[in-house]
Amino acid sequence: MTEMGVPGFRFAGVACGLKPQTAAYGGRALDLALIVSDAPCAAAGVFTQNRFPAAPVLYDREALQANPAAIRAVVINAGNANACTGEQGLADAQRMAALAEAELGLPAGSALVMSTGVIGLPLQMDKVEAGIRDAAGLARSETGQSGEGRMLAAQAIMTTDTQPKLAARQVGGTSLLGMAKGAAMIHPNMATMLAVVLTDAAVEPAALHATLRQAVERSFNAISVDGDTSTNDTVLVLANGLAGPVEPAAFEAALTEVCTDLAQQIVRDAEGASKFVTVRVSGAASEPDARQAAQTIATSLLVKTAVYGGDPNWGRVLAAAGRSSVELDPARAALWFAGDGGPEYQVVAAGAPLAYDETEAARIFTCHDLLIHLDLGAGAAEATVWTSDLTHDYVSLNAHYRT
Amino acid sequence: MTEMGVPGFRFAGVACGLKPQTAAYGGRALDLALIVSDAPCAAAGVFTQNRFPAAPVLYDREALQANPAAIRAVVINAGNANACTGEQGLADAQRMAALAEAELGLPAGSALVMSTGVIGLPLQMDKVEAGIRDAAGLARSETGQSGEGRMLAAQAIMTTDTQPKLAARQVGGTSLLGMAKGAAMIHPNMATMLAVVLTDAAVEPAALHATLRQAVERSFNAISVDGDTSTNDTVLVLANGLAGPVEPAAFEAALTEVCTDLAQQIVRDAEGASKFVTVRVSGAASEPDARQAAQTIATSLLVKTAVYGGDPNWGRVLAAAGRSSVELDPARAALWFAGDGGPEYQVVAAGAPLAYDETEAARIFTCHDLLIHLDLGAGAAEATVWTSDLTHDYVSLNAHYRT
Repeated sequence: MTEMGVPGFRFAGVACGLKPQTAAYGGRALDLALIVSDAPCAAAGVFTQNRFPAAPVLYDREALQANPAAIRAVVINAGNANACTGEQGLADAQRMAALAEAELGLPAGSALVMSTGVIGLPLQMDKVEAGIRDAAGLARSETGQSGEGRMLAAQAIMTTDTQPKLAARQVGGTSLLGMAKGAAMIHPNMATMLAVVLTDAAVEPAALHATLRQAVERSFNAISVDGDTSTNDTVLVLANGLAGPVEPAAFEAALTEVCTDLAQQIVRDAEGASKFVTVRVSGAASEPDARQAAQTIATSLLVKTAVYGGDPNWGRVLAAAGRSSVELDPARAALWFAGDGGPEYQVVAAGAPLAYDETEAARIFTCHDLLIHLDLGAGAAEATVWTSDLTHDYVSLNAHYRT
Repeated sequence: MTEMGVPGFRFAGVACGLKPQTAAYGGRALDLALIVSDAPCAAAGVFTQNRFPAAPVLYDREALQANPAAIRAVVINAGNANACTGEQGLADAQRMAALAEAELGLPAGSALVMSTGVIGLPLQMDKVEAGIRDAAGLARSETGQSGEGRMLAAQAIMTTDTQPKLAARQVGGTSLLGMAKGAAMIHPNMATMLAVVLTDAAVEPAALHATLRQAVERSFNAISVDGDTSTNDTVLVLANGLAGPVEPAAFEAALTEVCTDLAQQIVRDAEGASKFVTVRVSGAASEPDARQAAQTIATSLLVKTAVYGGDPNWGRVLAAAGRSSVELDPARAALWFAGDGGPEYQVVAAGAPLAYDETEAARIFTCHDLLIHLDLGAGAAEATVWTSDLTHDYVSLNAHYRT
């Protein structure tokens, strides 16, 4: 995966002291990543809907509005989210971008910023400044264009992720490379999801934004670990155009695949999770209905604990769909379970349980990869959401005191 | 509490074999309750919004529409929810009401029905029939008019509640008595909330319904154990009018108090809960906004695990409010914590943390009764929601296999 770079992009990841050197970070100290483009990029972003958006989110929104066709760099720090930091936080996000632009000799307004880590504490800007200087040097070196540079960058944006997350696709002579950090949360307030996708396809900013929104809707917005949305969640895409244009539908499909790959890696790496659950809702009156029902099932504590306990509890799935207030026909609803890619096993038809084999249903629920497929009997639309189970480890990790 | 009856109502609770005689029920076998009114009652109900409503919910909705001014009895069984049972379930709910009417010599259509317990299994009607016969006899006896009768009825509607839930108020020469069963859930699919409030006040059916809706909005709809809504949730109120009319505002206040008392008993008895949490949101642009923000905080897994762990994690509270998509002013938001009725201790002002004493905040979070008070800085409306924490016991109890 890390072998697949994208022409024209360079990468660096360095340690600048924002992350404490504790076991919680597995001894990793990398905490500042830099992505540099040789050519001006069309760029687009999708940001958290949280009403307390962090400073880098506010900064990037404005920067992309002002300069959507000539972005040159993304600077990302871990260890401090620069959230709930007021006016000082905004000034720090601005300064972080300006430092990267100065160090790389780029025009003002051409760098974007991302932050993840603890909230409510001011960024230590002396450390950020030193980190940006080191990272710029590394990006300019041989390493910056190698798989090692990409891996260092992917590691530097991690908080409590257990592994770096990268995904790549080729489409119509162009390349896409994405990296992400996920929602692992030994440390509270670090549940931020960040992702950057780079491509050498030529795509206009407006089309890039529309395509990204579509891709995010079916990937990052279709995962749920605990239903909480961070103040910092951000997905960026940068297109430097070096490989020329690409068929739009194929590009959207490839971007969706990269985003889905990264999103599923995030769910699989969620701390405290023991299972990977695909919730598929079919027979919905509309796609939003299908998505809402799937999300409600995926975030139901009763469903998530049943999955953890290996209990094929069809009643909880129906009850969760029922309270999602989407259109459904109780007399036509049907439910299937499947494990580890095996065939779907039907347990409910016409809204009532079949005389199914409890042993077989229980066996399916011991599988690590579980499919819950509910048909609402109300139409032809469908949607899929990925989630994890709710475990004792999840409670332990999140009840842990912040220190 | 059980000393306070309401003139004209008789009660019974008997064992008819719907509950298994297992330790999960603490050896209790009472599983059929009967409430009988000597006079015709104005009656109103508020029912689950779940799109898979159980048979007794469908039955009561129609019965109340057809006959809102002359209800005479409520028959309630525990051990089987008569949910996801199709046409047979509807016929069984009808038959349950008809059996009670026949046994008590009441007009057709004057009995309401409630069920709670496992879902997807047909009611054992022979047991229900014997139970109704026994309960009718008991209701006619001395016991039926005594505190013992009321206590037996309150016990017979329990599933895994650890104690019966009763609440009473006097207002303007009239009495109100409520009983409820709550959302304890050793056994999956038994998370149903049922409540009945009886009064000798004279209130017209339409006014009674409007008053009940208001009372439920601020009581049962303001509690959250895990965000899941059952297929059977029902609150009924019966007014026999024997004590004559009552000032409407005073009656609404008293009804709200009875419902709030019962609702809080349900939260305090939620299995797997170690703390009782009051979430108060002030400074909202509207009451629905305040309620939505409070509900989002109260159902946030990250907030609930922080409460369990004794971590005064202000960031999670702000992040939860922020994703509730209500109007708020990040530059004016403020947050306080208080424990066991003590003074409010401010930790956030103007959307950023104060230099507060972590030790004091942590001490507050060790209290059993915790107040989380968030001001959104966007208006003058407020709302309060009660909830519990998310514990290892909750996960253990709900991951348990259905047997």
